[in-house]
Amino acid sequence: METTEPEANVTRIMLAVNESSIKGYPHASISSRGAFEWTIQKIVRSNTSGFKLLFLHVQAPREDGFEDMDSIYAFPEDFKTMKHRDQTRGLHLLEYFVTRCHEIGVACEAWVKEGDPKEVICRQAKRMRPDLLVVGNRGLGPFQRVIAGTVSEFCVKHAECPVVSIKRSPGETPRDPVDD
Amino acid sequence: METTEPEANVTRIMLAVNESSIKGYPHASISSRGAFEWTIQKIVRSNTSGFKLLFLHVQAPREDGFEDMDSIYAFPEDFKTMKHRDQTRGLHLLEYFVTRCHEIGVACEAWVKEGDPKEVICRQAKRMRPDLLVVGNRGLGPFQRVIAGTVSEFCVKHAECPVVSIKRSPGETPRDPVDD
Repeated sequence: METTEPEANVTRIMLAVNESSIKGYPHASISSRGAFEWTIQKIVRSNTSGFKLLFLHVQAPREDGFEDMDSIYAFPEDFKTMKHRDQTRGLHLLEYFVTRCHEIGVACEAWVKEGDPKEVICRQAKRMRPDLLVVGNRGLGPFQRVIAGTVSEFCVKHAECPVVSIKRSPGETPRDPVDD
Repeated sequence: METTEPEANVTRIMLAVNESSIKGYPHASISSRGAFEWTIQKIVRSNTSGFKLLFLHVQAPREDGFEDMDSIYAFPEDFKTMKHRDQTRGLHLLEYFVTRCHEIGVACEAWVKEGDPKEVICRQAKRMRPDLLVVGNRGLGPFQRVIAGTVSEFCVKHAECPVVSIKRSPGETPRDPVDD
């Protein structure tokens, strides 16, 4: 099963992930985790050597001007050395996904970029040319969508690669469905 | 490699396919074939036992009232017996995909349904609950889309399962891009 395929031949799936907006829950959002689990269970399955996952987290600009945006994280250890250097926001989120990939045995890379999530995701998809972009989706109704905006709708319309939007399951919806 | 997984555990991918609109070209449309090849090359890959493809072709109602809409085709032979009985429109299209799946070694089923493609596809997706719906897309500009309509946009918005729309590559666009 563990035949290593040359990288040019693997299917590269980009996952746009974000932090939870729920207070006291400083981890990946429910819909990001749902999109990841769908990708592993329904697409990668047991064929771990055939895929590479590219995790992109986009965060709002920092007020203190600190930047550590261009590092690439591919192994759980990469986060340990980083932690002693600086506690960059959003990286515990990527650490979660990179560690999960490491356990499962599927190759991955992870980035943090700064800016407007929907635009940065589309720009990075254009640059990286993944075979598929997977984005989570809170499954909001039309009224809630107007208020909360949806990154997934924008990506489905504007990204230059195939995009699949994975709706959060009703059973996982928090008390305020705009939360995630 | 040929470990047969129980069906409940395979990833079921529904592909909505249609006939080419190009004269003298009575086969699958360019974008349908593109969507199929993407599914095989980028998702199924060598993991043929982990997937089942569900081909759905929706056609306009027949004027002569003839109906053969509820048959299921899963093997190339199914089309041979059908051919001696009746030459239903649209089935050579499904025969193409079922034969390709048979050669590749991935399980499949195929149907023809009658009605408005975008609505029937969403209804069948609701009934069949696939893990992913793949639809081809001519990649038309906004002006052409108004004239030609796009089934894929409707499905992305309204289907209850994850949907990915696969754009036709620019190199495969026929002289009239509304053709497919």
